[in-house]
Amino acid sequence: MRKFLVINGPNLNRLGVREPAVYGRENLKTLERNLQQLAEQQGVHIECVQSNHEGVIIDWIHGADENFDGIVINPGAFTHYSYAIRDAIASISVPVLEVHISNVHKREAFRHESVTAPVTAGQIVGLDIYGYELAILALLQKKGE
Amino acid sequence: MRKFLVINGPNLNRLGVREPAVYGRENLKTLERNLQQLAEQQGVHIECVQSNHEGVIIDWIHGADENFDGIVINPGAFTHYSYAIRDAIASISVPVLEVHISNVHKREAFRHESVTAPVTAGQIVGLDIYGYELAILALLQKKGE
Amino acid sequence: MRKFLVINGPNLNRLGVREPAVYGRENLKTLERNLQQLAEQQGVHIECVQSNHEGVIIDWIHGADENFDGIVINPGAFTHYSYAIRDAIASISVPVLEVHISNVHKREAFRHESVTAPVTAGQIVGLDIYGYELAILALLQKKGE
Amino acid sequence: MRKFLVINGPNLNRLGVREPAVYGRENLKTLERNLQQLAEQQGVHIECVQSNHEGVIIDWIHGADENFDGIVINPGAFTHYSYAIRDAIASISVPVLEVHISNVHKREAFRHESVTAPVTAGQIVGLDIYGYELAILALLQKKGE
Amino acid sequence: MRKFLVINGPNLNRLGVREPAVYGRENLKTLERNLQQLAEQQGVHIECVQSNHEGVIIDWIHGADENFDGIVINPGAFTHYSYAIRDAIASISVPVLEVHISNVHKREAFRHESVTAPVTAGQIVGLDIYGYELAILALLQKKGE
Amino acid sequence: MRKFLVINGPNLNRLGVREPAVYGRENLKTLERNLQQLAEQQGVHIECVQSNHEGVIIDWIHGADENFDGIVINPGAFTHYSYAIRDAIASISVPVLEVHISNVHKREAFRHESVTAPVTAGQIVGLDIYGYELAILALLQKKGE
Amino acid sequence: MRKFLVINGPNLNRLGVREPAVYGRENLKTLERNLQQLAEQQGVHIECVQSNHEGVIIDWIHGADENFDGIVINPGAFTHYSYAIRDAIASISVPVLEVHISNVHKREAFRHESVTAPVTAGQIVGLDIYGYELAILALLQKKGE
Amino acid sequence: MRKFLVINGPNLNRLGVREPAVYGRENLKTLERNLQQLAEQQGVHIECVQSNHEGVIIDWIHGADENFDGIVINPGAFTHYSYAIRDAIASISVPVLEVHISNVHKREAFRHESVTAPVTAGQIVGLDIYGYELAILALLQKKGE
Amino acid sequence: MRKFLVINGPNLNRLGVREPAVYGRENLKTLERNLQQLAEQQGVHIECVQSNHEGVIIDWIHGADENFDGIVINPGAFTHYSYAIRDAIASISVPVLEVHISNVHKREAFRHESVTAPVTAGQIVGLDIYGYELAILALLQKKGE
Amino acid sequence: MRKFLVINGPNLNRLGVREPAVYGRENLKTLERNLQQLAEQQGVHIECVQSNHEGVIIDWIHGADENFDGIVINPGAFTHYSYAIRDAIASISVPVLEVHISNVHKREAFRHESVTAPVTAGQIVGLDIYGYELAILALLQKKGE
Amino acid sequence: MRKFLVINGPNLNRLGVREPAVYGRENLKTLERNLQQLAEQQGVHIECVQSNHEGVIIDWIHGADENFDGIVINPGAFTHYSYAIRDAIASISVPVLEVHISNVHKREAFRHESVTAPVTAGQIVGLDIYGYELAILALLQKKGE
Amino acid sequence: MRKFLVINGPNLNRLGVREPAVYGRENLKTLERNLQQLAEQQGVHIECVQSNHEGVIIDWIHGADENFDGIVINPGAFTHYSYAIRDAIASISVPVLEVHISNVHKREAFRHESVTAPVTAGQIVGLDIYGYELAILALLQKKGE
Repeated sequence: MRKFLVINGPNLNRLGVREPAVYGRENLKTLERNLQQLAEQQGVHIECVQSNHEGVIIDWIHGADENFDGIVINPGAFTHYSYAIRDAIASISVPVLEVHISNVHKREAFRHESVTAPVTAGQIVGLDIYGYELAILALLQKKGE
Repeated sequence: MRKFLVINGPNLNRLGVREPAVYGRENLKTLERNLQQLAEQQGVHIECVQSNHEGVIIDWIHGADENFDGIVINPGAFTHYSYAIRDAIASISVPVLEVHISNVHKREAFRHESVTAPVTAGQIVGLDIYGYELAILALLQKKGE
Repeated sequence: MRKFLVINGPNLNRLGVREPAVYGRENLKTLERNLQQLAEQQGVHIECVQSNHEGVIIDWIHGADENFDGIVINPGAFTHYSYAIRDAIASISVPVLEVHISNVHKREAFRHESVTAPVTAGQIVGLDIYGYELAILALLQKKGE
Repeated sequence: MRKFLVINGPNLNRLGVREPAVYGRENLKTLERNLQQLAEQQGVHIECVQSNHEGVIIDWIHGADENFDGIVINPGAFTHYSYAIRDAIASISVPVLEVHISNVHKREAFRHESVTAPVTAGQIVGLDIYGYELAILALLQKKGE
Repeated sequence: MRKFLVINGPNLNRLGVREPAVYGRENLKTLERNLQQLAEQQGVHIECVQSNHEGVIIDWIHGADENFDGIVINPGAFTHYSYAIRDAIASISVPVLEVHISNVHKREAFRHESVTAPVTAGQIVGLDIYGYELAILALLQKKGE
Repeated sequence: MRKFLVINGPNLNRLGVREPAVYGRENLKTLERNLQQLAEQQGVHIECVQSNHEGVIIDWIHGADENFDGIVINPGAFTHYSYAIRDAIASISVPVLEVHISNVHKREAFRHESVTAPVTAGQIVGLDIYGYELAILALLQKKGE
Repeated sequence: MRKFLVINGPNLNRLGVREPAVYGRENLKTLERNLQQLAEQQGVHIECVQSNHEGVIIDWIHGADENFDGIVINPGAFTHYSYAIRDAIASISVPVLEVHISNVHKREAFRHESVTAPVTAGQIVGLDIYGYELAILALLQKKGE
Repeated sequence: MRKFLVINGPNLNRLGVREPAVYGRENLKTLERNLQQLAEQQGVHIECVQSNHEGVIIDWIHGADENFDGIVINPGAFTHYSYAIRDAIASISVPVLEVHISNVHKREAFRHESVTAPVTAGQIVGLDIYGYELAILALLQKKGE
Repeated sequence: MRKFLVINGPNLNRLGVREPAVYGRENLKTLERNLQQLAEQQGVHIECVQSNHEGVIIDWIHGADENFDGIVINPGAFTHYSYAIRDAIASISVPVLEVHISNVHKREAFRHESVTAPVTAGQIVGLDIYGYELAILALLQKKGE
Repeated sequence: MRKFLVINGPNLNRLGVREPAVYGRENLKTLERNLQQLAEQQGVHIECVQSNHEGVIIDWIHGADENFDGIVINPGAFTHYSYAIRDAIASISVPVLEVHISNVHKREAFRHESVTAPVTAGQIVGLDIYGYELAILALLQKKGE
Repeated sequence: MRKFLVINGPNLNRLGVREPAVYGRENLKTLERNLQQLAEQQGVHIECVQSNHEGVIIDWIHGADENFDGIVINPGAFTHYSYAIRDAIASISVPVLEVHISNVHKREAFRHESVTAPVTAGQIVGLDIYGYELAILALLQKKGE
Repeated sequence: MRKFLVINGPNLNRLGVREPAVYGRENLKTLERNLQQLAEQQGVHIECVQSNHEGVIIDWIHGADENFDGIVINPGAFTHYSYAIRDAIASISVPVLEVHISNVHKREAFRHESVTAPVTAGQIVGLDIYGYELAILALLQKKGE
């Protein structure tokens, strides 16, 4: 059975609470529940983790290289400056997809640049929490190649 | 029956021929065939058009405002400078999703900025021609809200 | 009888429909009607054209060099990147005035620069559709020198 | 009877003397005479002032808020750096139009940016001293809305 | 009894030891003692924490949303790049004040920009460790509104 | 008895009238009254002046060097370009604190840079008119060293 | 018999009329006549086309891939922003040479950058309409390799 | 008898008091005495004025056009932003020389650019108050041409 | 016996696994073994640590101030943005040398700037894992001064 | 008999040896032999020189003003920073053409700017060593005007 | 007897020949003759040298440290990029003055920055060849301190 | 016996004399003596050369390609602008190491960029003249691979 890791970065534990006008009213729980439903439908295993600690996220990325078939990551604000997470992604072989809940290109200028995007396989941006499900579908389709 | 317009911009008629290392070996025909299959599955109507002319694309966007429930657009190189297409998108009410076949963030610096992204609902980047199908799914899910 | 050409660029066919908070609720029809009234008052001929196609606008500018006594142009979004339209204006001898309906300096940064302004005779900005009438008055006054 | 204040900024007392190739040969006297003729025609009151002192101009703008129905201002070189004049304009309620005699976009790069434009209602640029008259017409038309 | 959290970021545990010419000779102990005296005087509760770990600081900010009436934060060097801390501050409702011991505008260029300042209520800069006391006073006055 | 000079720069005479959403509804009178109460409490002399003229402010700064024990200055928009005021501050020996009523870092980009900050002792930003009182307290504490 | 396509971009139909101080007094006719003479001399076929429409130029480039042995292109102002033409050139296999009649490096800053140059085989700049003939010679020599 | 005007800008009244490490210990009195000695030696008239008010300096420059044979100006900090003084200099015919006491190129980056230099005849920089005397010599020599 | 601390930053635990074309095939084990051999040869103590957590690295730097005679640090990607690590290095007295395994100047632009370099004693770049041994030699030589 | 000087700048003595993937396998000998053949064909005199010394090249340019009818120069890396060579070219009257063997616009960013191009008559770029021959033809044609 | 070295950089041997509109019609001979007259008047020794070779100029600067009491240098175009000449000047103790014949601030942007200015004692700009004489006077006055 | 060339660039002949606070008190003699001792120890040949002439350094680099097994170069100020030396290094096959005596990252901004670094094998920075010895060790170790 194929296994996917979904990593949520800093402040995503505040989803639903934090700036609902920007991030919607659904919370992390709902997101994880939706992903488990999708996992069942598709017959795959999905594991969801969240941390506000850059080092923890790097450790998870390293660990996933041997234990998962793909990663979906929303690096939160780390997207815009964590070259360490970028290097972590570049150091592994499994495909990584980047997801952003809001349309970052509509927001502050610093959110327009992703330092991690160049080392991921692709990005899904602005499609609310449904973007995570599309990312899983894309990983599945990629694997089927 | 819901209707979606898929607009491909300049040089996408060369898909499969043009730089296959970058854009893959699938051509525009395959893409359109895949989208028709999806349309049947989902019970929706999908219309595919392509043009190398900026003005034609603007006319299509205007026209879609009354005749379609959503647009999937890959503006090709216009992504990086056509403020006219940006304004066309901003002038209509139906949701627009932006798709790029290759991971533009891995390529030349000028491809890192999208002048259209801030007025679309979201972007799907780097997931090959499968990205168009995900975009349709996202529009369907959006509509279902 | 003196003749003036009024050229409206991309998306101005959407006037009144498009972002009324920015561009007001008057549409292209009203604008053209107002200009015809002014034409009668002043005893001049005014012809109004609109296109979303950069090439068409360039052709019109070239054509106007022999057939009109002045041009009023609102290049829409082409204002900010069409060096081709700039060169077209520079290639003719009749005076050209640039008009913008909204105050572009209040809006996104990319709208603050006009690549066409340096080759026109002047600009009228932010005075709604009345700006076109002032531009005609200015051309008339210029001619009377 | 409606009242309008026309403010000329630094070095405009040199009009006609200063760089005639750039600013034309008409002087401040002629400008003021033209405006008085227009005032009579339109049945309004126009008052003209000029100063080389930024602080004096700010004081005039503040004072106009209660005593005039609109301001036409040519801030001269202050256009390009006086955030204090910008704030003064932003602090009042009557409409303000910005006028430049020469086409500033044809000249040195520093003249391409106006720090005051974003808080005015609009700009008239490059139409010689006739631009002031058009600005008065625009204020009248605005008022008539 | 109102409760305030004072968060000191990276390297502030070195206060008094680290570059005394820049940060003065008072250490973190003295700062905390001064704040406790103020707390007693004002009849409020003040809790002081310090960490060199960005993730820990984010966790504290989240936690404070329900348990404190205001935060005084000196993010240390994180001020200049931690968009994750910025997002954490933006995700809570209690007012946050930013304090810097030294006058950062006198120092290296990178210290002139604060990525957290736009989401705080205000900043107190360059007033040595006395700045923390003023910040508490400001929070108290804010609350009294 | 110690003496402090409080200098308010351009447009601060409009306080309470000007953009209340940004600057609050309290006017310059209230500010001065609050400062006189504080002066009495602390047994010091506070003198308040305001001008829209850069030169007048420079003269006041020079004059304060011999007659006051400290200056609190809100240079208004001069903050962002008056290198002449910066040099005036650098030319005197008494401590100078800079105050801004609104959180300038939340506003337009040009307000993020203070050309005077590097030569002052510190800044208090975004704490409404209460910031002036904190600045006086800071000067008193500084003197007590 | 080898076949070459010579594409002239926007405003080159105005050659000889437009700014003769910059572009010389020879017109498009003369250029085409010179090229036909060269074609005869060299025993090759040369076809000359001109358009002010970006989309038309892209279509011609695509079409040339199968029907010509090389392209000489003067993209006019499109040189400086048409990433769509750049992508069209990159999508074909026949060699493309870029020609500019005037020395663009002597003119406005925006003319110093060519977005198409990196995907062409080379450039000939500033040698008047004789540059086109040299370009044909270069293509012939290239072919002879 | 030839007449020269020496204009000192903001904060130069503080010469000798202000930052002696940068500007030396000589004061404005000494400078003026030195210049009077030179005037006697050379048989010319020299008038020295100083102001902290930009508007006053502009008025002096205008006035000098008819009453003096040359101007020596040290615009102080206005050097770096007063486009109004620049325009004043450009509006007169008598030659203007710019003097700086300290070597501005050794100091803060903002002092490296002079907005007035392009419209003066030349600059003398870093030669202490002796620079003013050299400037008078240069004006005399210029006149003798 | 002199003691040196060798700190490896994020992703260096992946050495030998991660991008061998860039970082070589030697792993962290080999590096540490080489350093122990050198330690024996030179009669010194070398301790090697690695972490992906910025905060942990800061703690180690602080701790080293009293317990080690020098630090060799490869901050990995933190080199390019961790002003917090920079401040940690600046806060201690023992000499710190920066090492990079690959020639960072041959790689992406963001790797060309080191925010930590200005506060270290020196850098050794591009000499593979042998660079760490040279750094120890340099620290030994420095000590011998 | 007309005389032309061909100047090759730094490292062009390494042609054929140096980076053959970039510069091809032909060496300086071959280039000079080709040019002598062309000289015979055209009945002109061509002299070829090469130096790695900027000063020597400047001396040659000066000397050519009286002794040659045109210069073909490949300034090598000096193209990108030698304002001294630029000034040398600007100081003479004979026409100068700039040649680059490789397509510099395909290479590192620093090679995209030529500081000499604005003072030459034109450039031939990317056409291998054949570009020198075309440059001679262009000079001949220029002379024939 | 005091000794001064006057160094003229690249292309100054072309003085009088080169662009007389910019540099005047006086040649290097005249300049040297004027300086010898001044030397006699002042009872000092002046030696004049010129070279187009950066290395030669550096050697002269080094040599002057022991044999001259001051240097007047016009580095020509080296002013704008020769950090090597800058370092040479910084490596000696005798005062160095920089002279430019034309007003460099009126010319191309690259001429506005002097990389040597920050290490010289001062600059004299735009005063034609008379500037060299003023520089000698300034060195004499400096010595007399 | 292996042979290494040590090249010192401009102003390094002033070592020990020039700015000892920056470069230390050791002179070029000492450096060369140290290197000869190392050569003896390691049984290799080391040749030391120094020049202030860019062209001479380029000639040496070319010459070394056949006669030496490695180069240690301190290009002095040429590091920051000599693309010609960069190209020379890129044109040879023997490994080149770059050395800087002082920590260039602590100094002026222009010293932070090395245009030669990307084509060398590595850099050793800030380790005084001992850095040259480490560079030789690194070359020896490299050879032993």
